[in-house]
Amino acid sequence: MPFLRKHLQSVAGYTPGEQPPPGSPVIKLNTNENPYPPSPEVFRALQTIDPEWLRRYPDPTAIAFRKTASEVLNIPPDWITVGNGSDELISLIVRAVVEPGATVVYPMPSYVLYRTVAQIQDAQPIEVAYDEAFTFPLQEILDAQGAVTFIASPNSPIGNLVSEEALETLAANLQGLLVIDEAYVDFTDTTALHLVRQHANVIILRTLSKGYSLAGLRLGFAIAHPTLIQNLNKIKDSYAVDAIAALAGAAAIRDQAHKNSNVQKVLRSRATLHQNLVELGFRVWPSEGNFLLVQPPQEISAIALQQHLKTQGILVRHFNLPGVADKLRITIGTDVQNEQLCRILKK
Amino acid sequence: MPFLRKHLQSVAGYTPGEQPPPGSPVIKLNTNENPYPPSPEVFRALQTIDPEWLRRYPDPTAIAFRKTASEVLNIPPDWITVGNGSDELISLIVRAVVEPGATVVYPMPSYVLYRTVAQIQDAQPIEVAYDEAFTFPLQEILDAQGAVTFIASPNSPIGNLVSEEALETLAANLQGLLVIDEAYVDFTDTTALHLVRQHANVIILRTLSKGYSLAGLRLGFAIAHPTLIQNLNKIKDSYAVDAIAALAGAAAIRDQAHKNSNVQKVLRSRATLHQNLVELGFRVWPSEGNFLLVQPPQEISAIALQQHLKTQGILVRHFNLPGVADKLRITIGTDVQNEQLCRILKK
Repeated sequence: MPFLRKHLQSVAGYTPGEQPPPGSPVIKLNTNENPYPPSPEVFRALQTIDPEWLRRYPDPTAIAFRKTASEVLNIPPDWITVGNGSDELISLIVRAVVEPGATVVYPMPSYVLYRTVAQIQDAQPIEVAYDEAFTFPLQEILDAQGAVTFIASPNSPIGNLVSEEALETLAANLQGLLVIDEAYVDFTDTTALHLVRQHANVIILRTLSKGYSLAGLRLGFAIAHPTLIQNLNKIKDSYAVDAIAALAGAAAIRDQAHKNSNVQKVLRSRATLHQNLVELGFRVWPSEGNFLLVQPPQEISAIALQQHLKTQGILVRHFNLPGVADKLRITIGTDVQNEQLCRILKK
Repeated sequence: MPFLRKHLQSVAGYTPGEQPPPGSPVIKLNTNENPYPPSPEVFRALQTIDPEWLRRYPDPTAIAFRKTASEVLNIPPDWITVGNGSDELISLIVRAVVEPGATVVYPMPSYVLYRTVAQIQDAQPIEVAYDEAFTFPLQEILDAQGAVTFIASPNSPIGNLVSEEALETLAANLQGLLVIDEAYVDFTDTTALHLVRQHANVIILRTLSKGYSLAGLRLGFAIAHPTLIQNLNKIKDSYAVDAIAALAGAAAIRDQAHKNSNVQKVLRSRATLHQNLVELGFRVWPSEGNFLLVQPPQEISAIALQQHLKTQGILVRHFNLPGVADKLRITIGTDVQNEQLCRILKK
């Protein structure tokens, strides 16, 4: 098609994990969904949907959601903007900051969408490798001085946390924008949220997809200095978040007790699954997310194992990326699901 | 903020029409919402939402919605892609087709978002003026040979339809992509849908915001040759449409009888309001949409009238655009709302 942009012909696009239709008899441990349902408050909120809210355009700024998030996070509403999932915000940030040919820097392995979004923008992705011990490559990332730098912490698929000191060093010494993607923050104890108060070039991304069990709702948000938020709002889709998502999202984030209780269950299961996989001869990396990076015993290839598990009705994720191509990422399921996984692995 | 892209500093962003919070005692005739509620089938579908659908990522391709749309439109599902409102698809198309500095062509007045999206992309917007009689400027648009050309038909804020012959001529003679934005198609009798079968450079945009009364849901779709659809899918947000919107949207588009019945009511009210405004001394243009472009009697300025109506609890839209700055766009409301408008105008 001659009218398509030339550089897009070599862009592969992002390949999301397999999403079998609802109701498929499959144990889905491939896309880091929370195994427990969202807060009952979400369903209570859905019962109150007024035809008027669907007939009319939603509030462009989703103020009802931002006010609730503001109270939960103790940060003013004008430091927050919303997106149709944090994926949309990743794309929006790159479009706001990265000139064609400029650099998008991130460590690898990490979230592959950073690469895809950079390629779509005709930017230059600079992938700084974690070493074999998965040490965070702070100096190389600093030296690269990206127009934008993406740091996921906790970082999928490894599960590692990036230290506060490293993030502080990046914030203070990068000329460009530092995006700290905290999609998995609910499964750990620390956050870099305070950095946005001290550094106007830091933006934090959050999502309701993981801790709040709302991947199907598409609601993410960004926290940064109001001037940066205003600039993002200028180019964002006016009605990025629909009326139902804003309503249900506010109900979910208000119910911290439900989220925390689900998270505690996931953390207990993560410890058990970690232990069980080690006993089965797997190498397992410490994880601060709702997933484990594992390397099968020497005689078994990661891809072959993924395929075998699929025939047994269990989906896990393989990434053809430097440092993890011989490993698999397994989402923490319910205890029943994790035990079923271990039973099959034992055979 | 030094890290923001230079050209964005002069971009104003899109200013959506005022969206007062739900429950505000206001007659809202400013953003072309349908005055009648969406299909009861939508609410029946919302009652069936399973926690699993929210916990899990949605189907990236929204196949359930596309299958239903496919049956209604009699076009295969792989000729359709979905977006978070057709606004998202407008942005996606420009990012897929327009190199920096290349041209985005559209007649003016038309949907102002075409300009905003072109500016954000650092493209060159070429605005071809309708003349005073609002004649479609076919030859100038052809001569401009845009990388992408946007034609809204029916076209807001004028209300005019672009003839089939004109669209056919554009499709056959433009080297770039021709986007026919049919947001208001449900309020008229004709569609350019057949053009996508004959021309690989034509893409049709549809939305559920107007005819289906679902502006709050954010669901739009595009129809084009499967090769073009695949290329758009490659760069689109993987989960652009959430699980609830896909479900509710399918229910809405399946219920053609409800949509058609609402549309008939709007068309009857449009004829009545048109007549009443003429009797009040307004000049009123023929409209194929759910709105009327009107010019107040000579002694009254459009902006002053808009402000006065606002103090009386009625919102209408003014566009500071060539050819319509002395006019107002009034959305067709319920008969009660339209009569209230006329009562106030009479004073």
